Amino acid sequence: MLSKDALDTLFTNARTHNAWLDKPVTDAQLQEIYDLMKWGSTSANCSPARIVFVRSDAEKQKLLGCVSQGNFEKTKTAPVTAIIGMDMEFFEKLPQLFPHADARSWFAGNQANIDATAFRNSSLQGAYFMLAARAVGLDCGPMSGFDADKLNAVFFAGTTVKVNFICNLGYGDAQQLFPRSPRLSFDEACKIV
Amino acid sequence: MLSKDALDTLFTNARTHNAWLDKPVTDAQLQEIYDLMKWGSTSANCSPARIVFVRSDAEKQKLLGCVSQGNFEKTKTAPVTAIIGMDMEFFEKLPQLFPHADARSWFAGNQANIDATAFRNSSLQGAYFMLAARAVGLDCGPMSGFDADKLNAVFFAGTTVKVNFICNLGYGDAQQLFPRSPRLSFDEACKIV
Repeated sequence: MLSKDALDTLFTNARTHNAWLDKPVTDAQLQEIYDLMKWGSTSANCSPARIVFVRSDAEKQKLLGCVSQGNFEKTKTAPVTAIIGMDMEFFEKLPQLFPHADARSWFAGNQANIDATAFRNSSLQGAYFMLAARAVGLDCGPMSGFDADKLNAVFFAGTTVKVNFICNLGYGDAQQLFPRSPRLSFDEACKIV
Repeated sequence: MLSKDALDTLFTNARTHNAWLDKPVTDAQLQEIYDLMKWGSTSANCSPARIVFVRSDAEKQKLLGCVSQGNFEKTKTAPVTAIIGMDMEFFEKLPQLFPHADARSWFAGNQANIDATAFRNSSLQGAYFMLAARAVGLDCGPMSGFDADKLNAVFFAGTTVKVNFICNLGYGDAQQLFPRSPRLSFDEACKIV
């Protein structure tokens, strides 16, 4: 059982941040996040997530051309914005990632299974990413408001990767948080049978 | 920054379990998991995940009729199997969950956006669920190998919920773990630009 402090950091007090302190995120922190999140469970260890950490001014400008108006300022001011992508040919790495069975054959040629597996598992990995970022002391601001076709053309042209969602990363300015929105109760969302 | 022990529990030493100790999972633990995972970020706080915790023999038998052969024994012996579902009419709860804007109108009538948002965000919540379960001392065994149409007919007939994935829950038998599969390196999965 984790300590109350750890649970607060990951869940109870963790917020989606929209305003960022002027404090950089280091390469070592990005590596540390990946080296935690990579251990999270995926179906047949398929690990479809591919991440582009956008930090330079030039690349951030390209990204800003893809995001919705409501996400512009927060993305502009975030020290790093992570593009959580998914490799639609993830199954080509299964001989490496799942060496004890011919898992590649479960996917190759089955586009519906490829699409669902890439999307589900890169989303799981996106959540592992956010909790790993919080675990190492950073804050997150995930976003779905962007032009996916444009972003894919700018960042993933000539590859088999497509964007799933994007996520600002840095030290959030807690003074600029909105009041927290309500959540569904256990009885609204769950049942035990 | 979380302690090394906490990071080990969540990520570094956390494994997908296939064999379970004969030790029950309590209602209080299920409530505790939900009361952590519910705080995880979702798009416009849409919170589409709906969970059925299958524990009774009668309901477990119904579930066993839906899972693949490879998932039968582990599901049979797990103290609880969670069905992580997604409410395809999640947007009807947005007036409650996102009261400061008319977020319902962003989705109603836009089936492609509904489908992607339900799937992405219930997957994120499924990952929050697994990390919350580990955080309270339990182990997880997520699975995609089941007949989704059959499971939906058995557990979600007459509702707007569809299954995303299922996940065994309990105290894993570490002695029956397989050797851990490799992960992609940072350079294989990520880049900083």
